[in-house]
Amino acid sequence: MSFSSDSTAILNPEELRKIDAWWRAANYLNVGQIYLSANPLLREALTVDHVKPRLLGHWGTSPGLNLIYVHMNRLIKKYDLGAIYMAGPGHGGPAIIANVWLEGSYSEFFPAISNDEIGMLRLFRQFSTPGGVPSHVSVPTPGSIHEGGELGYVLVHAFGAVMDNPDLLVTAVVGDGESETGPLAGSWKSIDFINPTRDGAVLPILHLNGYKISGPSVWARHNDSDLKKFFEGQGYKPSFVEGDDPALVHQDFAGVLEATIVEIRAIQHAARQHGLARRPVWPMIVLRTPKGWTGPKVVDGKPVEGTFRAHQVPVSEVKTNPEHLRILEDWMRSYKPEELFDENGRFRQEYADLAPQGDRRMGSNPHANGGKLTVPLQLPDYNSYQVTFTERARERTESTGVLGRYLRDLYVANPHNFRLFCPDETNSNRLGAVFEVSDRCLVSDIIPIDDHVSHDGRVMEVLSEHCCHGWLEGYTLTGRHGLFATYEAFAMVVDSMAIQHSKWLEHAKRVPWRADVPSLNYLLTSTCWRNDHNGFSHQGPGFIDTIVHRKPAVARVYLPPDANCLLSVADHCFRSVNYLNLIVIDKQPQLQWLTMDEAKVHCARGAGVWDMYSHQPEDPDIVMACAGDIPTQETIAAVWMLRQYVPNLKVRVVNVVDLMRLCPPDRHPHGMSDVDFIDIFTAGKPVIFAFHGYPGVIHDLLHGRMAHDRFHVRGYIEEGTTTTPFDMVVLNKMSRLHLCLDVPRYVPGMLQSSSALVAQCTALLDQHQIYIREHFDDIPEIKSWCWTE
Amino acid sequence: MSFSSDSTAILNPEELRKIDAWWRAANYLNVGQIYLSANPLLREALTVDHVKPRLLGHWGTSPGLNLIYVHMNRLIKKYDLGAIYMAGPGHGGPAIIANVWLEGSYSEFFPAISNDEIGMLRLFRQFSTPGGVPSHVSVPTPGSIHEGGELGYVLVHAFGAVMDNPDLLVTAVVGDGESETGPLAGSWKSIDFINPTRDGAVLPILHLNGYKISGPSVWARHNDSDLKKFFEGQGYKPSFVEGDDPALVHQDFAGVLEATIVEIRAIQHAARQHGLARRPVWPMIVLRTPKGWTGPKVVDGKPVEGTFRAHQVPVSEVKTNPEHLRILEDWMRSYKPEELFDENGRFRQEYADLAPQGDRRMGSNPHANGGKLTVPLQLPDYNSYQVTFTERARERTESTGVLGRYLRDLYVANPHNFRLFCPDETNSNRLGAVFEVSDRCLVSDIIPIDDHVSHDGRVMEVLSEHCCHGWLEGYTLTGRHGLFATYEAFAMVVDSMAIQHSKWLEHAKRVPWRADVPSLNYLLTSTCWRNDHNGFSHQGPGFIDTIVHRKPAVARVYLPPDANCLLSVADHCFRSVNYLNLIVIDKQPQLQWLTMDEAKVHCARGAGVWDMYSHQPEDPDIVMACAGDIPTQETIAAVWMLRQYVPNLKVRVVNVVDLMRLCPPDRHPHGMSDVDFIDIFTAGKPVIFAFHGYPGVIHDLLHGRMAHDRFHVRGYIEEGTTTTPFDMVVLNKMSRLHLCLDVPRYVPGMLQSSSALVAQCTALLDQHQIYIREHFDDIPEIKSWCWTE
Repeated sequence: MSFSSDSTAILNPEELRKIDAWWRAANYLNVGQIYLSANPLLREALTVDHVKPRLLGHWGTSPGLNLIYVHMNRLIKKYDLGAIYMAGPGHGGPAIIANVWLEGSYSEFFPAISNDEIGMLRLFRQFSTPGGVPSHVSVPTPGSIHEGGELGYVLVHAFGAVMDNPDLLVTAVVGDGESETGPLAGSWKSIDFINPTRDGAVLPILHLNGYKISGPSVWARHNDSDLKKFFEGQGYKPSFVEGDDPALVHQDFAGVLEATIVEIRAIQHAARQHGLARRPVWPMIVLRTPKGWTGPKVVDGKPVEGTFRAHQVPVSEVKTNPEHLRILEDWMRSYKPEELFDENGRFRQEYADLAPQGDRRMGSNPHANGGKLTVPLQLPDYNSYQVTFTERARERTESTGVLGRYLRDLYVANPHNFRLFCPDETNSNRLGAVFEVSDRCLVSDIIPIDDHVSHDGRVMEVLSEHCCHGWLEGYTLTGRHGLFATYEAFAMVVDSMAIQHSKWLEHAKRVPWRADVPSLNYLLTSTCWRNDHNGFSHQGPGFIDTIVHRKPAVARVYLPPDANCLLSVADHCFRSVNYLNLIVIDKQPQLQWLTMDEAKVHCARGAGVWDMYSHQPEDPDIVMACAGDIPTQETIAAVWMLRQYVPNLKVRVVNVVDLMRLCPPDRHPHGMSDVDFIDIFTAGKPVIFAFHGYPGVIHDLLHGRMAHDRFHVRGYIEEGTTTTPFDMVVLNKMSRLHLCLDVPRYVPGMLQSSSALVAQCTALLDQHQIYIREHFDDIPEIKSWCWTE
Repeated sequence: MSFSSDSTAILNPEELRKIDAWWRAANYLNVGQIYLSANPLLREALTVDHVKPRLLGHWGTSPGLNLIYVHMNRLIKKYDLGAIYMAGPGHGGPAIIANVWLEGSYSEFFPAISNDEIGMLRLFRQFSTPGGVPSHVSVPTPGSIHEGGELGYVLVHAFGAVMDNPDLLVTAVVGDGESETGPLAGSWKSIDFINPTRDGAVLPILHLNGYKISGPSVWARHNDSDLKKFFEGQGYKPSFVEGDDPALVHQDFAGVLEATIVEIRAIQHAARQHGLARRPVWPMIVLRTPKGWTGPKVVDGKPVEGTFRAHQVPVSEVKTNPEHLRILEDWMRSYKPEELFDENGRFRQEYADLAPQGDRRMGSNPHANGGKLTVPLQLPDYNSYQVTFTERARERTESTGVLGRYLRDLYVANPHNFRLFCPDETNSNRLGAVFEVSDRCLVSDIIPIDDHVSHDGRVMEVLSEHCCHGWLEGYTLTGRHGLFATYEAFAMVVDSMAIQHSKWLEHAKRVPWRADVPSLNYLLTSTCWRNDHNGFSHQGPGFIDTIVHRKPAVARVYLPPDANCLLSVADHCFRSVNYLNLIVIDKQPQLQWLTMDEAKVHCARGAGVWDMYSHQPEDPDIVMACAGDIPTQETIAAVWMLRQYVPNLKVRVVNVVDLMRLCPPDRHPHGMSDVDFIDIFTAGKPVIFAFHGYPGVIHDLLHGRMAHDRFHVRGYIEEGTTTTPFDMVVLNKMSRLHLCLDVPRYVPGMLQSSSALVAQCTALLDQHQIYIREHFDDIPEIKSWCWTE
């Protein structure tokens, strides 16, 4: 590399020398993490004894990530930027750790990994070792809120982080592989939702190094002209940097990156001074550098640098192949560690000075430890939205409509740190009251026939569950609050995102310096039971399974049966931290069961006996339990029939709002004690349990409870089609009639006394089959049912 | 509309008149499906008695879908095309059904829906009614292999369908909403994998009508210049048609569509004559027409046509609002039904003649009922790949490597109807032997350092689980065979696709004219237990849960413990139809347990006692059961210890390959009888069950079995990090040591006899904790363990 002077160069020779030194140091530390367990500074000739027993890691992506990091450092200092770094490429962990160590943040978070020889050795040894750090950017990586394991989400996380964060810049690096995923491809459009008057900015850098694990990447084989059009078509202004000569790339990249930052600041300045007339053309960068750049050129006669062979460990069998050991040593010495680190192994001050100070360092920026910045929500008093009634369960209300009014006032009270995310269903989900105070956000042309759409809206509607979920992750991990409302069946589109986010939250609880972050709240509406008109593809309650199977420390599932319970649950969820809170309730008009006071007590307990809908519940013959709105309706209707047809039968109604209460207490923190469990479900009486989701969920939760075989669960058994609401519960054998018919099966000695009941239920089921064919509707008796004393 | 003559027009006045008539007829039928339950031809003045009691449906997208259908008909006839139609927009069902009825296919599949007045009435009445047809294109829709419920997959289904189908053209309509999803955005790149010398073609038509449910769509607010760049950047040549005057749009669209078809044929002709030098520039169309085009312009003073208000039922409350009834009648009469249908309600012959004949009709094309075209695979004799050994369980083999050799020969024997789909992990998954006979497919520039990449390759690698899964769905639904191999944790990325596909398969079994299609086969490698080096984000066995919860008729889960079992299972799966077959086995070198003969018998039974690894298994004190490779290893190692430390204990080893065998027979067709169950698991002895996945799966499957509380399941309990293989089983309490320690807990009276065992296990666990910290590795005793007599 030459440091010759060039009057057009961005970097003067001294700057170039230092930046290149930082870059070499970071590259050196990456190689060290993969290979060394001793002799970290190469003071001695490298021997097999210095090499780790098991060579793990991924070299290929690191040099590019390192390049971007050090150049960002220069500009953070020059422009006093508040910036964080998100590394999309898989296995980018050691690169970020190397830079965070060089800038000093790492040793502050992890004092044992000090800025000296022993610290460096520990840095090397902890990588990909038991109890150490993984090859992905992950929770213990300072400066990070993006895990690099499951690819596809770097841009949505980045854009979510900058919403309502006007002073935050996220440098988001997209790798070859990630760029092929659907979620990533669908997230470039996020700039259509970014308003620079109030939001920060994302600088996407598509880093093309040509290969994924072994195949070439799709974008790497498209030329710059294609890429330019692709990004321009989506509203970006791409700049290109390509090369393999470090000195030239440093200069080119320094210039392009600085121009990009200047442009972003100009966009923001203009918008904040003069308002936003139209969507800005946001800059982004395409960076083409060789995979495994500066690594071994050839190993065993095969090219490595610039090929897929540089993806993981570019030279293996170092312990057994002396030629390979020599290649490794030459490679590591090519970075001239003796120039970079002083005699104590400390990064030399002249290079360390490239880093910004304190919280401006990307590893120390508090936005990447967002809980530190969290401002709790100002919550409206949910009592003011309560549904009141003079008679129980006689009128129907859209419960989510009630929540919509609460959310409207939540928006007002929290103008800058709450957003609703929804795949274009806010009105459909009956949450439309929010449009009284905010609009759909779209930073594009708005036309007169549009309904509540503006640049300034904070209701985030995009028909992409991936964008909604990912934005909300970014928003909450930077300390803000939100709700993801969606159709129940299509929550499954993002259940892998929910799983990965749960792993993040769970891991974060065990990282002492990570502050608590607001929970990620889900509201699933348009549930399986009331997608009677939309058909089989829209019927799927599997997201409950997904959340139930997360680590107990972070998973909460609520099935409020009516509006007042929904309000109480929502209030609780919005106060919580570090959870995935799943709330499931349908949007259609539904009977209301509890007064607000009753709902509060019931939700606080999470599960309890509903005396007012029971019949002599003290020492019951049978427990009729339910969880979910439609199961509650069918259960109470069934009990109403039982009272009429089998008046001597003692029936207790139990409703479960907080599903995790069913778990034994050693399996979940919400699990109720055996004493409480027996109090509610009796010690041994049969329980017929009507459940919103797949019955297996209840069996699984009850495992470990005494005598759980007495629980007979009805739920969604994957039967569905386009039909009526009542036919849905009939098809899945959870109708009031089925629940009644279940009773004599499980209560001993009812054969005689239940004959009228059985006859009536059977007759009604027959009548249903005929009526539905003739009238395309439910029999009036069912349709108009309400509870009467 | 004017039919004036214009010498530059594509359609002569007579053609235009007829095409417009077809289009009006289709539109009329769409409105009828939403509204009418009587008076289908409007012979009488419309009254409320003719209107359905419940107005369901989605008008907005239909006119555009209808336009495309009739214009395709013209070109199918003119060029004798073999074409099918995939409607991406949600709720496009009634449009396709209308056209399929007009062309005559529908009445052939459903004779009761005849081509006359009564047939039309039935067509109207069945829509969105119980037992009828849903608003999405779905399984009973003739001509369809794409469900319109969960959006995002129309292009991947279309591209999968044309692979190895050189004469097939798929017209794939992408709607405003769908175009925003991640999976759709990621699927435009499919042309980088289409080779016109052997594959057919997809014609994507992006249909922008401006709005989704209520918000404007992102693409609708980008101008044509943006869209042009976006598509050109990805290798397409977009053409634009925009308008709201039917006559003009008919002419424009006819011209553009024909030019597009001609271009596709030219591309194919050139490639087939002269070979393929580079990726062709494929044509596609952007069609901008008003949402709900030709529908009511204004209702209640609010604009409807061209706005989001046209999305569903554009004029509601028809039964109670006389003005609305009048709007509806005017709207329907605007199509002039009396001109379109004869006195019997039959579509007039001069218009019906626009349809192609027989199987050329898109509703009758056999590719959309792909089972009719299925050619069973020529399967290599899997015995020839068997792993042989002189001593049991002493050497390690990469089982998936063995399968790779089988797949290699499968490719050779089935050169045109088998493909492997994989997110760039074929080599990583040890299936690399396939590259001896095929390459990675990439229809882009290939460079010398690429490894087995060519235009002609049939190994489909793209770093998008969505593309892999969707392509394979399209490939199998058109009657061909394949395997989707992926890392276990990231199968979750597409579990909603698996769910939707399972719904399709299950529904198809109940549609008599749907022929059986090849199963969709999954191979999950790089499992949770052996992602010790990749960390927590890569550890997740949840896809088993996803498949287990599908309808029993279509779900199969196999956990072969070694290579010979894997071969036997794979052979079985490749012969099967209509299933989701999930095979889970890790790729790392693993001990081999069974000879080929033993494996065959074992896999045929699905579960059984392994006498050779048991200790006096006839009347055991305890059953040690296992399912999955690592659980099997830990179980057998535990039994080996038990024999040494508690020689009087009688231990039976049970292995389960076919997970569904555990179900009671009334819950799954593979469920074993109670007699068999007792034969294997005894009538009441404790069972310690080591399971590959989440323990709840086993509890759920066993529900309904007698005394299932005696099953104590160990499995993945969401504990993980970057560590060693053995530490993974320790963290999750499924190690051989934990299994041994479980035994005295559940076998009565072992307190005395087990003290040495307990001491040894505890000591080894302690030793493990120390050793792993010092050596980053497993204790040699564990690492080198193999089974000895």
